[in-house]
Amino acid sequence: MLDGDRAAWVARDAAVVWHGFTQMSAFAENEPVVVASAEGRELIDVDGTRYLDAISSLWVNTLGHHVQELDDAIREQLDLVAHSTMLGNGNRVVVELAEALARVVPVDDAHFLFASDGATAVEQAIKVAFQSFANRGIEGRTTFCALTGAYHGDSVGAMSLGDDGGFGASIFDPLRFPVVRAQSYDDAAAVVRERGNELAAVVVEPLVQAAGGMLLHEPEALARLAAACHEAGVLLIADEIATGFGRTGTLFAVEQAGVRPDMVVLGKGMTAGYLPMSATAVSRAVYDAFLGPDLSDRTLYHGHSFGGNALAAAVALRHLELLDSWDVLANVRDRSAQLGALLDARIAGLAAVKEVRLKGLMAGVELAPPMPGLRWGRRVCAAMVQRGVLLRPLGDVVVLMPILTSTADEIERIVDALAASIAEVCR
Amino acid sequence: MLDGDRAAWVARDAAVVWHGFTQMSAFAENEPVVVASAEGRELIDVDGTRYLDAISSLWVNTLGHHVQELDDAIREQLDLVAHSTMLGNGNRVVVELAEALARVVPVDDAHFLFASDGATAVEQAIKVAFQSFANRGIEGRTTFCALTGAYHGDSVGAMSLGDDGGFGASIFDPLRFPVVRAQSYDDAAAVVRERGNELAAVVVEPLVQAAGGMLLHEPEALARLAAACHEAGVLLIADEIATGFGRTGTLFAVEQAGVRPDMVVLGKGMTAGYLPMSATAVSRAVYDAFLGPDLSDRTLYHGHSFGGNALAAAVALRHLELLDSWDVLANVRDRSAQLGALLDARIAGLAAVKEVRLKGLMAGVELAPPMPGLRWGRRVCAAMVQRGVLLRPLGDVVVLMPILTSTADEIERIVDALAASIAEVCR
Repeated sequence: MLDGDRAAWVARDAAVVWHGFTQMSAFAENEPVVVASAEGRELIDVDGTRYLDAISSLWVNTLGHHVQELDDAIREQLDLVAHSTMLGNGNRVVVELAEALARVVPVDDAHFLFASDGATAVEQAIKVAFQSFANRGIEGRTTFCALTGAYHGDSVGAMSLGDDGGFGASIFDPLRFPVVRAQSYDDAAAVVRERGNELAAVVVEPLVQAAGGMLLHEPEALARLAAACHEAGVLLIADEIATGFGRTGTLFAVEQAGVRPDMVVLGKGMTAGYLPMSATAVSRAVYDAFLGPDLSDRTLYHGHSFGGNALAAAVALRHLELLDSWDVLANVRDRSAQLGALLDARIAGLAAVKEVRLKGLMAGVELAPPMPGLRWGRRVCAAMVQRGVLLRPLGDVVVLMPILTSTADEIERIVDALAASIAEVCR
Repeated sequence: MLDGDRAAWVARDAAVVWHGFTQMSAFAENEPVVVASAEGRELIDVDGTRYLDAISSLWVNTLGHHVQELDDAIREQLDLVAHSTMLGNGNRVVVELAEALARVVPVDDAHFLFASDGATAVEQAIKVAFQSFANRGIEGRTTFCALTGAYHGDSVGAMSLGDDGGFGASIFDPLRFPVVRAQSYDDAAAVVRERGNELAAVVVEPLVQAAGGMLLHEPEALARLAAACHEAGVLLIADEIATGFGRTGTLFAVEQAGVRPDMVVLGKGMTAGYLPMSATAVSRAVYDAFLGPDLSDRTLYHGHSFGGNALAAAVALRHLELLDSWDVLANVRDRSAQLGALLDARIAGLAAVKEVRLKGLMAGVELAPPMPGLRWGRRVCAAMVQRGVLLRPLGDVVVLMPILTSTADEIERIVDALAASIAEVCR
């Protein structure tokens, strides 16, 4: 596995790959890891160095890397077929996956529109919501409401729902459609009551605004928003891309609010972090608005070539079975309690720390640099990488996103490294 | 492999899966195939029936299904790692793939931004073009030019570039940004000369507007458009999602016009049709406009969780090697010549046929129904499916999209079935 110089691989990488959300002129200086292989919860660099994957490979990995049962699911499906189209045709493993999802996704009598990038599943939700009113002959429902600090992905529609959020979306304003912005779930509920007849849907991340900086919201407020939407006939779309598949301690975050949205958007953890797959789960009532004569205007003319990929479906299906048979949610709750206690005891009281936020196994440690330009978030994470723990910040929020099967020792290792890194950097 | 009743699987499918570009109330009536497995160029239904995959699983498959060498590439990568993030970090097989792509993709000194859906790679091209002018302090370059009948995908940005094209995009007008529409490459060149200072980029499918109905364009006109763009400092973006990876007889269609665009968008055939992967290849000159201080506004704040998926990269890399070692392009040219001769001899002269269009191994047979509402395209394809040849039309254009490794016998079988189906339906 040793391919010589890590620096040489970084240089080869920088010569041909443009990394997302990355200033490429600084790529090589920010401790990039060039992954060659992985085992369990560790990534192994081209030079053989091991790193604990404490960001779950950017929030997607749930059960670990190179998991025999997941590998086998792909190997078995390879012996059948890797991919066939969903346009007008089906694939057996996709039917089986959709049936398994329908049993657990909190949407009434759901149909699943599959895509591959999370952003495109958000786009699907936008278009389904918009067209569902047009199909029912209801005019004027052309606007969406989303939160301050919202992030729902980077394609033009998803980026329109998103707030600028430090990601510079506003420079694309000439391309974005306008969105009604709400400060909180309760503010969104007020918008729905006041301007419901202009709105197709309210789109929120349930309980945690993840890329917004791991901002927490109360389940009770989400329930009030759902009630306001129901009352006004405004669709509620829950973007569970970051929160879904056990990350918050329940299979889906909306469960903690007792809410069943009209649509739920799935991505990231759906395939346990193995393969690109996303989906938009749509309630029967919304789906029914699209039924009509063949080739008619009521049809949703939208589809992605690799939506419902059979290899991705096979691993997603096995993943659902393993979440259940391994009782992964119990581990999430136990490790979350442990992580919360450790952060309270060792991190929250530090002068360099403004706030610690935790839900399930997603945490944000917001640093409090005394002046701008210190890049504490970036530098603390680089110090973590030097300690063998891979992290990536959101500005000055250090994000901890352990793999859902993490052990107690691994949680301790993350907090140990964080305490040492803060002590080193934040002086 | 026999799972009993095909009808039962279709019913299970329709109960939980929403198929793209499909009126679900008519799904079961339109001869849907529920694929269970595949071998070579044949798909095998849940009831064991075999179908020649004459649409390349919606234009994505290049070398066939269940290809030992491609299966092995995924199996070998599974033993290393399925996925790790590209955000600020790398993965060895992705570096190797990007290096291999850089050698063959006709973009100067290219960097590759990876995504999974084709539409999101188009969105990346839109955003890179737009921001590249902002980063260079050039104002007013906020508009895009695209063709009449254009199709570039279904997310809001991609759908903005697209014309209504029978896909109903205009109902989403409140969400779409305005685009300058040109009738042809030469008309686009005229727009560039007249309004270049408003334009960030011209976006075209090179040589063939695929989803637009397999409309053909002259290479010489594309070369004139490229020259006009270069002259006016307007970026030229070639959407090679449908045409790339050998489909038109050259590895990329722009090669036939001697054009090197500023950006090329890749998808569909990239992984030989195995796994979701797309990419935006960006020239060095455009890429350089994004270099600047770390965390600065010059950065492209865009990225997809599964962009640069390692399993997809492994199969895409092996695919490039096989295209070369198997000399697939030679087969495309031979089978294209054969298909052209057969269509001329047996199809083009039929009273029911308005026009036959062919480039490489992508063909459109435009039917000429004597009155609206006869659904000839749909019905001819259903008759093909009953003859064991899977097709899917674009309105009344029957699309033939054979897998690139098709044999002479298979090409004959497709045309035989087409002739018989037209004779049966178009009376």
